[in-house]
Amino acid sequence: MNRRRFVRNSLMLGGAAPWALGRWSPVQGALLPPTGVDGARLNAEIQELRRFGGTPDGGTHRVAYSDEDLGGRDWVLARMRDAGFTTRVDPAGNLVGTLPGTDADLPALAVGSHIDTVPYGGSYDGTIGVLAGVELARTLHAENQRLRHPLRLYVFQNEEGGKTGSRLLIGAVEPSELDIVTASGFTIGEGIARLGGAPDPLTAARASTGPLAAFVELHIEQGATLERAGVPIGVVEGIVGIRRWFVTVTGEKNHAGTTPMDQRRDALVAASRMVSAVDEVALRIEGRQVATVGRLEVDPGAPNVIPGSVRFTLEIRDLSMEGIEGVLRAIQARAERIATDRGVAVDFEPFYLSEAAPAAEGLRRAIEGAAEGLGLRHMRLPSGAGHDAQSMAKLCPMGMIFVPSRGGISHAPDEFTEADQITAGANALLGTALELDRALG
Amino acid sequence: MNRRRFVRNSLMLGGAAPWALGRWSPVQGALLPPTGVDGARLNAEIQELRRFGGTPDGGTHRVAYSDEDLGGRDWVLARMRDAGFTTRVDPAGNLVGTLPGTDADLPALAVGSHIDTVPYGGSYDGTIGVLAGVELARTLHAENQRLRHPLRLYVFQNEEGGKTGSRLLIGAVEPSELDIVTASGFTIGEGIARLGGAPDPLTAARASTGPLAAFVELHIEQGATLERAGVPIGVVEGIVGIRRWFVTVTGEKNHAGTTPMDQRRDALVAASRMVSAVDEVALRIEGRQVATVGRLEVDPGAPNVIPGSVRFTLEIRDLSMEGIEGVLRAIQARAERIATDRGVAVDFEPFYLSEAAPAAEGLRRAIEGAAEGLGLRHMRLPSGAGHDAQSMAKLCPMGMIFVPSRGGISHAPDEFTEADQITAGANALLGTALELDRALG
Repeated sequence: MNRRRFVRNSLMLGGAAPWALGRWSPVQGALLPPTGVDGARLNAEIQELRRFGGTPDGGTHRVAYSDEDLGGRDWVLARMRDAGFTTRVDPAGNLVGTLPGTDADLPALAVGSHIDTVPYGGSYDGTIGVLAGVELARTLHAENQRLRHPLRLYVFQNEEGGKTGSRLLIGAVEPSELDIVTASGFTIGEGIARLGGAPDPLTAARASTGPLAAFVELHIEQGATLERAGVPIGVVEGIVGIRRWFVTVTGEKNHAGTTPMDQRRDALVAASRMVSAVDEVALRIEGRQVATVGRLEVDPGAPNVIPGSVRFTLEIRDLSMEGIEGVLRAIQARAERIATDRGVAVDFEPFYLSEAAPAAEGLRRAIEGAAEGLGLRHMRLPSGAGHDAQSMAKLCPMGMIFVPSRGGISHAPDEFTEADQITAGANALLGTALELDRALG
Repeated sequence: MNRRRFVRNSLMLGGAAPWALGRWSPVQGALLPPTGVDGARLNAEIQELRRFGGTPDGGTHRVAYSDEDLGGRDWVLARMRDAGFTTRVDPAGNLVGTLPGTDADLPALAVGSHIDTVPYGGSYDGTIGVLAGVELARTLHAENQRLRHPLRLYVFQNEEGGKTGSRLLIGAVEPSELDIVTASGFTIGEGIARLGGAPDPLTAARASTGPLAAFVELHIEQGATLERAGVPIGVVEGIVGIRRWFVTVTGEKNHAGTTPMDQRRDALVAASRMVSAVDEVALRIEGRQVATVGRLEVDPGAPNVIPGSVRFTLEIRDLSMEGIEGVLRAIQARAERIATDRGVAVDFEPFYLSEAAPAAEGLRRAIEGAAEGLGLRHMRLPSGAGHDAQSMAKLCPMGMIFVPSRGGISHAPDEFTEADQITAGANALLGTALELDRALG
C-alpha cells in the first residue's frame, strides 16, 4: 500500500489521519494566503449572478435547463476561465473546471455545488459553493501559489430537480428519469442536450470524473441550528438517510349525525393520534432524527360523514439507517396500540429510500482545523437536506461546510446569509483545500 | 281561544294534553282496527317499488327528478288512488293525497316521507313512511272506518338533495337553489317542472298546505341505537340542530429535513391534537351531542415539507342549540390551549347552521301510547339526521317514529330493516293517527 492509498483509505473509513489532528494553522501553514479570499468580490458576484433569474424580492428563479440557467452557466464559465480554470461540459452536462497542480500524478481535489434554483427560490443555495470555488482559484493565483493536486470545480446540473448531474456520475440515474418534464418545460434528457452533455449521458457520464482525492462542498445550512448557536462554520457529519411510507388507517365510514360518539370507528381521530405519536416519538428518542407527516388525505372528506379511511405520508431522516429503523419501530408500536384502541386497522407501505452518506472523518477534522486556524467557532451537525456531495461520497472522501441561513429559511426569496458569513465559509473552504492538498496523496 | 287552538298550542309548546297521557289503548279504542295493517302487503310493496331504480345488491338508485323517480312516483300515485286518496301535485312538486274525514271543518292530519334516494343508496329510507301512509288508508277502508280529520299523505320531492319539497312549503328555499344541478343531471328548477310543480314554486308553494292538525313521519333510524337496545319503536325527541365551522390552523411551513423537532411549528401536529380534542370533548360532556371532523386539508401537502397550514371542518349536532354552543366553547378552549403550546394560530369560521326542531311533547306521548297499546317497547332518542318533518315542524306539531336500522347502516345498499319491524312501525303510525284524530281539534 503506497502512502496515497493509505491516506485515502483512512479518510474513507473515518480513521484519524495524523495530518488532520488540528496541527494546521495560519502561522504554521506556509501555503496560507495571508489575506484570504476577496470577500467583497465574492459577495458582489453572488449578487451579479442574479442577472440571470433574479426576482424583485431578492430571490432567484433559475430552474435547471431554462434560459436563465444557461445564461448563468455561461457567465460562470467566463469567470472560471478568468480564474485560470480549463473548462469543459462533462457527459452529464455538468460544467467542470480544472486548474493544474504541481504534481501531475495526483488525483484531483474537487470542490463545487450548483447554480440552478427551485422555482422562485433563493439566491444563495448552491451558488455560494460554486462562486467560492472560483474565488479559491483567484486567491491562489493572486498569492502566486499552486496546489500540488489539480483543483477541480464542479457546477452540477439540475441539483434541485433530483441531483441529476452528480447522480449521472455514479450511474444512479434510471433511463426513465430522462423523460421527466422539469420546471423549465424541458425533459431532463432535452435539458442535458441543451447544456451540451453527451447524447448518451447514462452510459457516458458514469465514472467520467477520473480519480478524485476528495470532494468538499460549501453550502448554506437551510436550517437554523448555526444561527441559534451563534456559530459561523458547520462541519457536516453526513447527509441523512431518508425513508418514506404511506400509512393507511381504515375505520368505518358512517353518518355523522346518527352515529353516537361511543360507536364510532373514526379513521381520522385514530390517524390524528398517530400523527401526534410520530411527533412525540421523534422528539423523545435521543438523537437528531426527524419525523414528519407532510401529506394527509381523508376519505370521503365530507363535513357530515365520519371518515372511513385516512392515508398519510411518514418521512423519517437520520444519519444512520439503523436510527431510522429504530424510530419506525417505535412509531409502529404506538400506531398499532392506537389502532387497537380505536377499532381501526393500520398499514405501513414503504415508497422511498435514500441512503445516508456520512462525511469522511478526516475531512471533518480538516474543516475543523481550517476553522480553528481562522479563529472561527465551529460545530458538527447533520445535513437534513440532500446535496450533490451525497453522490460524490460514492467516488471519494466527502466533506461539507455549512454557513448559517437566516431564520433557517431556504428555497424561498428571503433565503439569506450575511456577506461576512459567506466570506468566512469561503475562507474555511480555502483552508480545507490547502490542508487536504498538503495531507492527501 | 277555542278548543282546537288550545290543543294545538299545547302540542306546539310541548304541554301535556290530557288525551296524550297514556289513556289510549287497543281495548279502549273503538276506532282501533283489530287486525292492524297488512304487513305482508306493505313489505311486498316496498320490494315492488324497487322496480324503479333497484340495484342487484339490494339497494336503490332513485335520485330525485330522474326517470326512476318519476316512474316510482307514478306507481305510488296509482296505489294512493286505489287506497281512496284524492291526489294532486302541489306547487312544490310534492305528491299529495287527501282522504276526506267525517268533519269537513277540521284541519288535515298529515303523514308521509319521500321515495327519492341518494345515489346508489338503500331501499328503506323514506320509502317505508310513504307506503305505510298508503297502507294506513287501506286499513281504515278495510275496517270501514273513517277519521274525523282529513288524512293527508305527503310524498315529498328531493329530500336527499336538500329537503327541497318540504322546505318550499315553508318558504325556506333560496332562488339560487333552483339552479343547483342535482345527481339526476337536472337542476332543481328543471326537476320541479318535470314533476309537475308550479312554474314559480318559490312563491306558489309557500303556505300551500292549508291548515294542518299535525304531521307524523315514520322513518328508519339510520343509527344503531334501537338495534343495540333491542327496542322496536323509537320516539323521536326532535331533529338535532347542526352547526359547522371551518377551522384554520396556521403554523410555519418548513424543510422537513433541516428543521429539528424542537424548532417546528407544525400545523398538522397541532391540528391532529385538536381533532383528538373534538372527539374527547364530545364524548366527555353529558348528553347525546356528536362532533365530527369530516374533512381536513393540509398545505402544502408534500411528504418532505412541514405543513404550514391545515383547514378542517368541525360539525356539532345536538337537540338544543345551546348544547351545541356549550360543546363549541369547550372545543375552542382546548384548541386555543393546543395552539399556544405549539406556537400556531387557530381560527373558527362558521359556515352552516340548521336549527334544531323539537318534536311536540303531545305527539311523543301519542306515539308512546300507540306503542304501548301494541305491546311494543319504545324509547326516546334524537334524530341525528335531517328529515322533511323538520320543515313541517314550522307548520304544525310534529312527531317522528323510528324503526331499527340493521348495523345502523343507511344511504348504502345494505341498509335494511326487518319486515316485522316495518309492520310494527306502520302499526304504531296507525295507532298514533287514531289517537291524534280522537284528541286533536
